[in-house]
Amino acid sequence: MLVHELSAAECEELLARSDFGRLACAYENQPYVVPVHFSFDVERRCLYAFSAIGQKVEWMRRNPKVCVEVEDIRDKDHWTTVLVFGRYEEITDAPAHKGARETAQELFEKRPEWWYPAAARVGRRESHAVLIYRIRIERVTGRRAGRDRV
Amino acid sequence: MLVHELSAAECEELLARSDFGRLACAYENQPYVVPVHFSFDVERRCLYAFSAIGQKVEWMRRNPKVCVEVEDIRDKDHWTTVLVFGRYEEITDAPAHKGARETAQELFEKRPEWWYPAAARVGRRESHAVLIYRIRIERVTGRRAGRDRV
Repeated sequence: MLVHELSAAECEELLARSDFGRLACAYENQPYVVPVHFSFDVERRCLYAFSAIGQKVEWMRRNPKVCVEVEDIRDKDHWTTVLVFGRYEEITDAPAHKGARETAQELFEKRPEWWYPAAARVGRRESHAVLIYRIRIERVTGRRAGRDRV
Repeated sequence: MLVHELSAAECEELLARSDFGRLACAYENQPYVVPVHFSFDVERRCLYAFSAIGQKVEWMRRNPKVCVEVEDIRDKDHWTTVLVFGRYEEITDAPAHKGARETAQELFEKRPEWWYPAAARVGRRESHAVLIYRIRIERVTGRRAGRDRV
């Protein structure tokens, strides 16, 4: 099996056709990792997502450094993984965030099939606080494996 | 959709029938998350795995606090996620680790279908340093979602 590093463009290609990954955050050096849906905004180099207000959001408010892992696994010999290193930023109702809110909304509307573990809360609550956030991408790395040409 | 917290026994049931998840570690509060194969040792409350010596291992040597996320996703309304919080511990060639090495080996032999992104290195190297480690489980949490009985 041959493994090679992806270029930034190859990493972005995977992010653009993905909407699901795992987000890791850390507080006092204890990491925490959960599945997330996201939309990649190639122009602004951001991942947009939303979440119920819980441990993940509390931790990212305290330490905005995050890592998002995205995979495309065909089989044991053909797989691609991309890691995004970036910073958490909350999209509020403030006028300054109007553009970001609209962008996030447009991106979310392209994803009608999303399911929402990130927004799900324990119990039968019909409604609960959900916020929009983005990860400002600072660095992207990726690897691809294949038997022959990769 | 109804979401409920899993008991420790329910979490362990998913770990026992899984061999793949995502491991997050952190160094200087920067999280890092990668896919990993593992074998759950229910008796010793450990996850055994192996890895090439790279960034993940270097970071876990410096900060042994880790989090492993394991999923069982049937569809958007039926999914289970389990989080393991624990500590990284390297299995060396020392006589004191003989039992752990044998346990790991037995567990690995039950997983002939493993593929090895964790062990893969960039380029055409035929051999490279791989080590065995375990995550000593300190705490497990889980959630399950379903439309009716969950």
